[in-house]
Parts: sequence; structure tokens; C-alpha cells
Amino acid sequence: MKSHLPKVLQPLAGRPLLSHVIDSCSVLPDAQLHIVVGHKAEQVRSTIEQELQNPPLMHWVEQTEQLGTGHAVQQALPGLADNGIALLLCGDVPLISATTLLKLFEKVSDTNMALLTIELDNPFGFGRIVRDDNGDVCQIVEQKDANESIQAIGEINTGMMAIKTSHLKQLLPQISNDNAQQEYYLTDLISLCVENGIGVEAVQTNDEIEVMGINDKVQLASLERAFQYRQAEALMREGVTMADPSRFDLRGQLTVGMDVFIDINCVFEGWVELQDGVTIGANCIIGSPGAQVTIKAGTEIKPNSMVEAAHIDESCTVGPYARLRPGTVLKSGAKIGNFVETKKSVVGKGSKVNHLTYVGDTQIGESANIGAGTITCNYDGVNKSATIIGDNAFIGSNSSLVAPVEIGAGATVGAGSTITQNIEDGALAVARGRQKNIPNWPRPRKK
Amino acid sequence: MKSHLPKVLQPLAGRPLLSHVIDSCSVLPDAQLHIVVGHKAEQVRSTIEQELQNPPLMHWVEQTEQLGTGHAVQQALPGLADNGIALLLCGDVPLISATTLLKLFEKVSDTNMALLTIELDNPFGFGRIVRDDNGDVCQIVEQKDANESIQAIGEINTGMMAIKTSHLKQLLPQISNDNAQQEYYLTDLISLCVENGIGVEAVQTNDEIEVMGINDKVQLASLERAFQYRQAEALMREGVTMADPSRFDLRGQLTVGMDVFIDINCVFEGWVELQDGVTIGANCIIGSPGAQVTIKAGTEIKPNSMVEAAHIDESCTVGPYARLRPGTVLKSGAKIGNFVETKKSVVGKGSKVNHLTYVGDTQIGESANIGAGTITCNYDGVNKSATIIGDNAFIGSNSSLVAPVEIGAGATVGAGSTITQNIEDGALAVARGRQKNIPNWPRPRKK
Amino acid sequence: MKSHLPKVLQPLAGRPLLSHVIDSCSVLPDAQLHIVVGHKAEQVRSTIEQELQNPPLMHWVEQTEQLGTGHAVQQALPGLADNGIALLLCGDVPLISATTLLKLFEKVSDTNMALLTIELDNPFGFGRIVRDDNGDVCQIVEQKDANESIQAIGEINTGMMAIKTSHLKQLLPQISNDNAQQEYYLTDLISLCVENGIGVEAVQTNDEIEVMGINDKVQLASLERAFQYRQAEALMREGVTMADPSRFDLRGQLTVGMDVFIDINCVFEGWVELQDGVTIGANCIIGSPGAQVTIKAGTEIKPNSMVEAAHIDESCTVGPYARLRPGTVLKSGAKIGNFVETKKSVVGKGSKVNHLTYVGDTQIGESANIGAGTITCNYDGVNKSATIIGDNAFIGSNSSLVAPVEIGAGATVGAGSTITQNIEDGALAVARGRQKNIPNWPRPRKK
Repeated sequence: MKSHLPKVLQPLAGRPLLSHVIDSCSVLPDAQLHIVVGHKAEQVRSTIEQELQNPPLMHWVEQTEQLGTGHAVQQALPGLADNGIALLLCGDVPLISATTLLKLFEKVSDTNMALLTIELDNPFGFGRIVRDDNGDVCQIVEQKDANESIQAIGEINTGMMAIKTSHLKQLLPQISNDNAQQEYYLTDLISLCVENGIGVEAVQTNDEIEVMGINDKVQLASLERAFQYRQAEALMREGVTMADPSRFDLRGQLTVGMDVFIDINCVFEGWVELQDGVTIGANCIIGSPGAQVTIKAGTEIKPNSMVEAAHIDESCTVGPYARLRPGTVLKSGAKIGNFVETKKSVVGKGSKVNHLTYVGDTQIGESANIGAGTITCNYDGVNKSATIIGDNAFIGSNSSLVAPVEIGAGATVGAGSTITQNIEDGALAVARGRQKNIPNWPRPRKK
Repeated sequence: MKSHLPKVLQPLAGRPLLSHVIDSCSVLPDAQLHIVVGHKAEQVRSTIEQELQNPPLMHWVEQTEQLGTGHAVQQALPGLADNGIALLLCGDVPLISATTLLKLFEKVSDTNMALLTIELDNPFGFGRIVRDDNGDVCQIVEQKDANESIQAIGEINTGMMAIKTSHLKQLLPQISNDNAQQEYYLTDLISLCVENGIGVEAVQTNDEIEVMGINDKVQLASLERAFQYRQAEALMREGVTMADPSRFDLRGQLTVGMDVFIDINCVFEGWVELQDGVTIGANCIIGSPGAQVTIKAGTEIKPNSMVEAAHIDESCTVGPYARLRPGTVLKSGAKIGNFVETKKSVVGKGSKVNHLTYVGDTQIGESANIGAGTITCNYDGVNKSATIIGDNAFIGSNSSLVAPVEIGAGATVGAGSTITQNIEDGALAVARGRQKNIPNWPRPRKK
Repeated sequence: MKSHLPKVLQPLAGRPLLSHVIDSCSVLPDAQLHIVVGHKAEQVRSTIEQELQNPPLMHWVEQTEQLGTGHAVQQALPGLADNGIALLLCGDVPLISATTLLKLFEKVSDTNMALLTIELDNPFGFGRIVRDDNGDVCQIVEQKDANESIQAIGEINTGMMAIKTSHLKQLLPQISNDNAQQEYYLTDLISLCVENGIGVEAVQTNDEIEVMGINDKVQLASLERAFQYRQAEALMREGVTMADPSRFDLRGQLTVGMDVFIDINCVFEGWVELQDGVTIGANCIIGSPGAQVTIKAGTEIKPNSMVEAAHIDESCTVGPYARLRPGTVLKSGAKIGNFVETKKSVVGKGSKVNHLTYVGDTQIGESANIGAGTITCNYDGVNKSATIIGDNAFIGSNSSLVAPVEIGAGATVGAGSTITQNIEDGALAVARGRQKNIPNWPRPRKK
């Protein structure tokens, strides 16, 4: 991967490959996860444990020597209960589906193991599934050993399988490393099963994406786009109108109501909920990793806006070029305009912050109007303080509100004022120099 | 469609599907439109009537019961003149071309009707066109009734046709609803024609897009992209250089001069004219629904800018991150820079508004310079007022101009001033507090 | 091309088509370039000479009459040394690879010339390569002259070739213009070679992109995307993680370290270096034509940012919505936030300019904090002046710093101040009007 980051931590849709695999396993009742990690085991473990929202119980097993896939599974063997079923997955095949996992499980019995296969148009390089006259799987032949008739077989081994733990414990130690690489190959388990009278049930998927492994950044990007398109398609099936599903990125979870419209080139991160009739303009970035964003019915996010962890009520208008940072709450009908940044602030019902403004650590009441260029000065270089603005207050343009400060309900701040003291309800505060005009003033000269 | 919006009002390239169909009909001389609407008829009618720029005469016919496509046409029958030709189209097949409509018309005679067909690679699910030994259409066989040889037919019925009104009035009432769904199918008209000695002339299109109907949001997105690419291609054939035609969206009309360059990911809405040599940077949104934007020769719109209803003269520079709101007029050579918003304002020849500024309800003369962070305070919470800035005026940075106010020609405003009174030509106005330095000031302590 | 710009100057990846051809030639040791230009020769010459970074020696030859490709080469003939090899390329086939050029060269001898061919799925319209029973090229047959068996040939003439100059000088004058267009076709050189006993060695490429010529804007866009994808793929092979390689544009050179991440829809221009672990957010534009940008290890550029000619040290954070204009230097750990513009300025180690600020012609020391809405007033309408801000200074929000001015180390500026005089180290400066509250102030009435 040409990366310092272990392969299983490489991101797909914003999450480590391995997290996707673990998520798919969550469908299996009472499953115990045994995760074998070689390279940078500690980094893998801590990243995954922090990244997963509700991490299941995970047994981390370190493979100190890299002696092949069979050897990797062997490391986990001691920890497996004797009476269960072992499902063997790959940490770099992220999109294996829960449905397929269940199918594999169902096929396992005292007499059978289950192997996931797929029919490829171009099977070159993969191990071919050879079946006998009854259609039963009898052998896997690697590319280098395949004669012409076997090369013509399109069905290949995906490397994913399910087997009784008792069978696994019996057969896995028999795998040898008598090959060019001197590695223990998990694939050899199949022929051992056949030799030992355990039937190999092929479960065939027709979805290339779920068996696609990642070996380089080109494949990673290719799987990313396939996955993103799939997510877009699922949302369109739920009723979302998308201007361009191939310019849509979801790195997390998106819940949608009726008649949601998403324009071109938007990115969604974390947990985002868009309720009925929400429209998201072009080039918006909604949400951030791990954060929760709720946007209620009828709200419009105009183009080029960014919304981090924020809660937006009904019928608000946000943007264009608005940035709602964490802790922003917009009450219904609030309006945030262009080149406005908000942070840890509540904007009350119907209040407006329309232009070139910074609102931080601020509570704005209802129907207030915050003029263009207003800055809440919430930081004195050491401490952060709060600004409170009452209902129906009118803050003149280009004002500075030096926190901590309270602007009363219905109060007015004259344009260009620097407000350092509280203002009573209904009062006007002005804090600016008196204008002086000097006639016939000579302009500076060119130096 | 999983939507509260009727299907024919779903947007393609920003306009209702039905509007596209109506537009295609505008090529037909003296055509009378009879539009049969079932679901939410009133909403459909009012939306379409408002949306169309020059609405033709439309007869709206309500289908109160949904008894099939044949029944729908029957609702319109009484309104049709006896001596005309009826062209039967679908409100959810938006991209039928005017050329094809004319071809259908030409084939209609006292002895023939015309049916639009297409040859598909995968005709599964569609009614197949069965022809006799002379190549004449003799039957349409639906998928469920198709034997193997008929399933092999690739030519399918698009559902669009033209027929003498007299034939239509004679045969349509004979369609029966003796079928599983108990619906009256317009398709049955074809066999009735054959039975009654009216020849069925197949007009074959080879353009899948013009016969593509919309049944869900996935199809809608797919048609959107096909249509957008087609629009991009047409503009490139007119000479536009496009960085990426698959990242181009036109929701309206775009008129172009020579040597126009459009960078990636731009959206055009409403009526936009780009004259010779105009360049549009990446991620720009030019125009808005229903609005008119003219950008004259040699003007450069830098990336990430938005231009709503605005008029921009020659050789201006706009952006990046500029937002020109409705009523903005830029005279030749004017320059609008980053994080600047303009609204209902004129910026004179060669004048500059380069940084972090709000200009609203303002007239700026020629060669004026508006400093960074300037705010025109055009709203006192109740009324909007005008700002007038003379030729060659220099407005110092971070100034607030409290409207109504006039800044004379050649006048200067000191940086950081709040201007509430007019300034004579050539005068300097300063309105700010005197600076006081307090040495060795102890910083606030961490609370 | 429907353009005032000569075809060979049309831009591919931001550079003239001809520049790409010239660049490919740079691999050839001691090559002399003879460039035949017809239309707007002077414009072509001056544009190319300015555009190339290290222009090789170029002999410009004007073709005053447009009498065909053979005639064009004839114009250059007198300038060619007799004992060399002539490589004949096309100015509108921009992506010919250096590797292929070398292969052509290698095949040329006293008895052989070399012709570049390609096998196409759809060879319609191109001259077919006819080979004799030995597989030697014996003829090129144009589409209009091709019988059915020749039309079935997929191998076509690309028009690019290499030949001993002595052979060229001998044979080129023999080409006749006895054809419908009365033009001299370079293609005729092939049959002349065969007739004169000079073998024609076909060098076959399998890369359609390198032989693709440009005849209209649709082809130009198509080649642009193919080239961009190729560049993206090469970067991914170097280890870059790309959210979407089909939404990536590089118009210049991009050098990358380990673990670089590039999000969707970014554009790179000029010479850009991204060191280890740099991440570039969505919709960023990094670099500008001809400019150099260095971004050192661990720096994060957040979405919607633009970086022109700038130098950014380690572990900085830039954006979102930041614009770093030319001459910006960020020292390690500096932070530039949203709606901030910098120009010809240094931001010291760990200093922060987080919101809605213009910093121009300014030196900021270490660990300084520049409050929201600060404007450095660097321009008095005539001259630009410098602002100097010391280490650990704290500039209160919405301040105006009127240059030339120096803010001492550890100095503090009160919010909303307009600073016109220097501030000593550790001092507090305040420059604003005193606040006056007027109780029970009646709001303006609606006019």
C-alpha cells in the first residue's frame, strides 16, 4: 500500500477496512470475534477499538511471524470453542455482506464445510474451483498449476469459508509449508476436507464487490467508488433525489425522510439525519467523523456550506458559504447566511445571522437580527466567555460584542459599536468615535 | 417515486418532467395541448403554468379515476377537434425530441397511424413489435404473453404514437378492461387499428434517451446525467472548452460566445449568457432558477463563486468566493474579491471591492476602492436605505457606512470608521476612538 | 476548434497541446526541434517559449501556405542536418510518450524507416496498414480507397514516423499533390519508401491515448479526462490515497510523500509538493499556473481552501474556506481558519488566524492570536505598507491595524480597536469609542 498505516486500517468510506468486516459480523448472533493481526498489531487494535461505535467483544491475537494465512488462523485456534462454527474472513476484504455470512453458516454441518466462491469473467490469477461430476467441489487449483481446461473455469475461491471448529482444529495443523514461499496456505484446508470426507459446499455470490480484496491504492479507490455508488443507489431507492449519484460520498450513516434532495458533490460524515423535504446544495459537507447532525423538515442548506456536529430545526436556511461548527443549534426558521461561522451557540426561532459574522459561545433569542460583520469576541486570549442576545434584539453591522456580555430583549446596538457592557431590554447602545470630516484632504502620494 | 411530489413534477435538469415534454411540443405548429392529470391535478397544473416561460395554450383534463392509459386518453377525447392528428405522449418520458414528433406526424394519414418504436439490446419487460412478412407492424405482444421467438424481438413499443383524431375517436372506446388489472391499455389501440385496416407505421428512433421513462429516483438520476452530458457535448460542439463534461450541470439555458472556458464542477441555472472569452472557475454556481445572468466578454469568474441574477460587463474579475446576489451590476473592469457579497448594487468601472465586504443597496462610482471588511449598513431593522459612493472614493478597511449616506467623489474614509454623515467630494472622514496604550498590561488569568 | 486560439495552443491539463509534445521530445539526447507553424505562427511561438519551464532550442519554421502535412515537413527540410534521424510528430497529438519515441528511433537504419501504428477496434476513417506475406508493411490504404478486406484491417497509421534525414530529403520532394484536395500528404512518404527499397518497420503501440489527435472540443475533453485519470493512477501507485480519481485534476507537477490523502474534486496547478501525511480536503485548489507550493509533513488543508504560491511548514492547519495568496509563509503549527485571506505575509510558529481576517504584507511572530474580523489595513489607496506583530501578541476581534504599524511582543489590542500607532511589548492598546446606553430607545418605523 506504500503507507505507514497497516492495510486493514486503510480507509474505505472514511472507516478502516477491518471495521467494515467487523460490522458485517454483527449480524451473527453471539459471534465471538478472534482477530489475528501481524504488522503493527497494537496500532490496529487501539484504532479499531476506538473507531467502532458499539465494539463487540474482540479477542486480539498477534501473529508474530508472517507464515501465511493458514498460520494466521492457527494463532487463533486455541481460543476457539470446540463446539462452534468458525467463519474465516479477511481483514482486507471489507464489503463482505451479512447475508452472505449467514448463507455460509447455514451450509456448515458435521459433514460439510462451506466455501464462498464467485464466477468471474476474468478469473486469471485466482484459484479455480474444480467440481466433480456431481457438481461437488473436489479441488482448488492455483493459476500456476492450472492446465488449459482448468484455466477456462470461471468460478474462483474467495478465501472466505465456514467450518465446524472441531474440523478446523483437526485439519488445520495438517497444512504443510512445503512450497516455494514456505508458507502455510489456508486454501490447502479445502483439499484436506475433501481427503477427510468433509464435503465442500460452495456458496456462490454474484456480487464482485463483496469479495474484492485491497492490495493497492488503485484498488482501494475503485472499491471506494463502487461502495459509494451503492450507498447512493440505496438512498435513491429510499426516495432521495440525487443530482449525481457518482458525485456523492457518505462516510458514515445517512438517514433520510421523504423528498430529500442532494445536489452534486456533497460529502456526508458521521451520523446524519435529513428529515422530510430537506435540500442540500452543491458542494456541501455535512457532518464530521463521529459526530451527529440532525436537520429537520423543510430546512435548506445552500451550496458550499459545512455543517459539523449541529442540530438544525425545521425550515431553517443555511448558507451559502456557512460553516456551522460543533455545538451549533438553530431553532426553527433561523437563517445563517454567507461567510458566517457559528460555534457552541444557539440561534433562536426566526433569528437571522446573514453575513460575514462570527458567533461563538452565544445564545441568541427569537427574531433577533445580527448585522453583517458582527463578531462575538468570546476569547480574551486565555478564557472563553458567553454572549447572550435577547429576543428581537438588533445588532448593527460591524459590531463587536465583547463577552461576557448580555444584550437585552429588543435592545439595539448601533452599527460599528464595540459593546463591552450589558444593554438593558429595549435600550440603544452606541460605542464608536464621532465622525469628523476634513475637507479637501490631500491623498497620500506614491512613494 | 417515494415522494409527495407528483411524478410529472419531479425535476430533470431543474425543471418538471412534464415541462420538458411540453417544450418538445412547441415545435409543432398550432398544436393544442391536452394534458390529462390524475394525481394532485391542481398542483401539477399550477406548477407547470408558473414554470413555463411562454406557456402555450393548455387544456387541462382531470382523470378522477386511475383506470389505465387508454382511459386517460379517453378523458381528453371530447376536447379534440375531429379533423386533426392526435399525438399521444407520456408526461414521464421527458426527453422525446421535437424531430421525432415531426416524424411521427408525417407518417399519419387517412390509412395509417404512426407508432414510435426502438430496438433495445435488452427488451425484457417491454411490449415487442411483431411485424408481418411485409415488415408491417401487426401486433404488440407483452412480455408475459411472449413466446421464445417473440422474446427474441428487440424492437419494442415506446407507448408514443400519432393518429388521426377521427380514428382515435372511433377506436379508443372499443378498448376493453378485460384483463388482470381491469385497466384500459392504450397499447390495445394498435391491434384495434390493425383489425380495422389502419396501417401501423413504426417510426424507429435509435436514441434510448428520448424514450426513457421515469419510474424511480435511480432512473431519474440516470436520465439526469445522460441529459447533462448531452447538453455539455452540445456546448463543446459550439466551441466551449470544458475541463470535465461529466461534471457540468445546466438547469436552464446557456448561451455562449467564442473561447468560453468552464472548469470542473460548475452549475448553471436560469438564463445565462457567457460572451467571448469568459472563463468560469471550478465549483462556480452561475444563475438561479428563473433568473437572467449576462457576463460580457473577457470577464473571469474565479473558483467557488456564486452569481445570481446579475449583469457583469467586460473584463471584470469576480471571486474566488464571491457571491453576487440579485440586482448586482458590475461595470467594465470592476473587481470583486474573496468573501464579498453584493446585492442590488452597482459597482462602477474599474472599482474594486476586494475582500470580506458586504455591499447592499449601494451605487459605487468609477475607480473607487472599497477596503477589506467594509460593511454597508443598509438595514436599520425596519427599513433598507441606500449608500452612494462617488468616483475615486477610497473607503478605508473595516469601515461601516451607515445608510442612507453619500460619500463624495474622491473622498476618503479612514480605516475602522463608522460613517453616519455624508462626506463632501475630496474630504477625509474619520470616525473612530483615539488610541490609548497602557504599558505592561497584565493579561487575563486562566479561570 | 471554434476558437481564436490556434489548435496547438489549446490547453490539455492546463498546458498547450504543443508543449506536451515538446516535453516528450526532451528524452531524446541532443535532439533539435524544428517546429512548423502555419496559422498565427507568432502567437504560437511566443506562447510556447514563455510557457516552457526550460525551453530547449527550437527552430521555428513558418508554413505560409497550408498545402498539406507533406508540405509542412518540407518547410523544415532545409534546416535539418543531413546525417541525422528525423522524427516526425504532430502538434495536435499531445500525449505521445517518450518511450515510444525511443522505440521509433531504434528502428531507423540506412535501410529502414519506422512508422508508429496502432490496432483499433474501430479503425474506420483511418489509413490501414497493409502488410505483405512476410509481415512487412507494404502500403497504407486510406478509408475511401479500402476494399472490404482492407477495411477489415484494424492496424492503422498514426502519422508519426522516424526516418534518416537523408532518406527524407531524397523522397519528400517526390510527393505529389495530384489528389482531390491538391495537398501534399506526408502519408505518401511510406509508399515512396517501399518503392525505393527502404523498409517500413511498424512500431505498434497499444495505448490509444498517446496517438489520439485533437480535432474538436469533445475530443479535447475526452483526452483531458483520460490524461487526468492516468495522472491520478500514477499518484495512487506512488501511494496517494484518493477519494475519487475521476474527480482529480493536475495541471502541472505534483510531488508526493508517504500517506498523502486527497479528497474529492481537488485541482492542483503549477509545481506542488505534498510531503508525508499531508491531507487535502474536498474542493481545494492548490497552486496556480507557474507557481510553486510546498506543504510540509502533517499539514492539513481543510475543504474549500485555495493555496496559491505559498510555503506551508509542518503540522499546520489551513481552512476550511481559507485563501492563501502568493507570498504566504506559514511556520510550523500555524493555523489559518475560515474566511481568511493572506498575502505576502509570514505567520509564525503556532500562531492562529482563525476567522474572517485579511492579513496582507504582515509579519506575525510565534504564538500570536489574531482575533476574528481583524483587518491589516495595508493600502492607503496609493502605497502598500507593512504590519509587524510580535510573538505572543493578542489582537482583539474586529480590530483594524493601520500599516505601517508594529505591535510588540506580548502586546494586546482591545477588540474593535483601530490601531494607528505602534504598541510596545506587553502593552494593551485600545482605540474605540466609549459605550453609551440610551434606555427605552424607540426603534425606527417602517417607511
